[in-house]
Amino acid sequence: MSAGTVYGVGLGPGAQDLLSVRADRLVRNARHVAFFRKAGRAGQARQIVNGMLHADAVEFPMEYPITTEIPLTDPRYNEMLSAFYTDCTAHVRALAQDGEDVIVLCEGDPFFYGSFMHLYTRLQGDVAVEVVPAITGMSGAWTATGAPITWGDDILTVLMGTLDADTLVRGMKQADALVVMKIGRNIDKVRDALKRAGKYDDAYLVEYATMAGQTVQRLAEAEGKVTPYFSIIVVHGQGRRP
Amino acid sequence: MSAGTVYGVGLGPGAQDLLSVRADRLVRNARHVAFFRKAGRAGQARQIVNGMLHADAVEFPMEYPITTEIPLTDPRYNEMLSAFYTDCTAHVRALAQDGEDVIVLCEGDPFFYGSFMHLYTRLQGDVAVEVVPAITGMSGAWTATGAPITWGDDILTVLMGTLDADTLVRGMKQADALVVMKIGRNIDKVRDALKRAGKYDDAYLVEYATMAGQTVQRLAEAEGKVTPYFSIIVVHGQGRRP
Repeated sequence: MSAGTVYGVGLGPGAQDLLSVRADRLVRNARHVAFFRKAGRAGQARQIVNGMLHADAVEFPMEYPITTEIPLTDPRYNEMLSAFYTDCTAHVRALAQDGEDVIVLCEGDPFFYGSFMHLYTRLQGDVAVEVVPAITGMSGAWTATGAPITWGDDILTVLMGTLDADTLVRGMKQADALVVMKIGRNIDKVRDALKRAGKYDDAYLVEYATMAGQTVQRLAEAEGKVTPYFSIIVVHGQGRRP
Repeated sequence: MSAGTVYGVGLGPGAQDLLSVRADRLVRNARHVAFFRKAGRAGQARQIVNGMLHADAVEFPMEYPITTEIPLTDPRYNEMLSAFYTDCTAHVRALAQDGEDVIVLCEGDPFFYGSFMHLYTRLQGDVAVEVVPAITGMSGAWTATGAPITWGDDILTVLMGTLDADTLVRGMKQADALVVMKIGRNIDKVRDALKRAGKYDDAYLVEYATMAGQTVQRLAEAEGKVTPYFSIIVVHGQGRRP
């Protein structure tokens, strides 16, 4: 019996027909499907493929033991997540060693700020792993704004809202075009940083890009609103355009 | 008779099965297909869809009047390209106003450093335009390296090799993870900048990502080699990993 392969399959920003043809085939034919989710939630990756899974597919939800209950700086945060990823890896590895292919569903692109990479590194050398790139959430977001993100020689910088304020301001000032992700509870800090960097009035807030609930508005007009974790802020570059 | 729609369809990094399901359908059903190319070349976007076009599809190649024959700083560069894009837009607009849908093939993601945006802005208000986001060339490149591009709070910066040396160095120093595109004849300048920024030894050169001729090597081991325009340099972030 030959060992199976673990596929880290990027699903893209959310719309089902924005899966790649390769990802679409892998998901529809999968017998073992693993995905991360918050405890008690359906899971964003799993929801994207609603209606696509084979009737006999065996699902393996991997529920984060924590998300924001413990601060990132607390050493227990890394310890708990590390143990969690090790457990998930053991399950997936055992399936593959038993000859089964395992599809791990990943929202966005698996190698771009994804959770899959924590399985990926732990599986190296044990079983075959293949990664299917995908449309990033930020591509979905800037497309939703109806304006190009980068022109000519524009510098694009991608920042996480979890960074400290000064780092955010420095990164924002250096960039021509800007994407800010993970903004949920960091929204006030991100707003202040954009103001200090002189980019607040040009910032757009995109929620649920490419999905049914998609909204696009100027961040300044969303003042005070709480935004979900998967909201993305976009500031367009203004580079050379013949 | 109702007017047609112009679709800017991102094709992704190069592999045909990395088109999105939406793009795949649009391309296979298209009756009018436009694409940019260098004079005398098949065109990268057109090559990606080889074998996919309908037998009755009418092709409209749009050949750049110049690419690197005139420096970017010469005012004639912008004038010639502007006139070219205006001509292309007129053709596409006329087709749509005659009731035809037009598919414009775009390598990578249309709103990410693409030529399509020059048609897109010129068509605004005249005919309906829809943009289909796609997997970027850089996603294809970092996936090819077999290592995640960004972890935790890593800052990702995307730089064009056409930038001046000091701007390149400044951008490289600020970034945790780095992508450099448009490196063809700028390769020596990009190499020097990476050395000055202390990132040269960590840089990977990816050519023809996701395509038949894909190569991945450390940039330091590719010393002296001339690289094609669509090569991409990747430096991976080393952020938080539980």
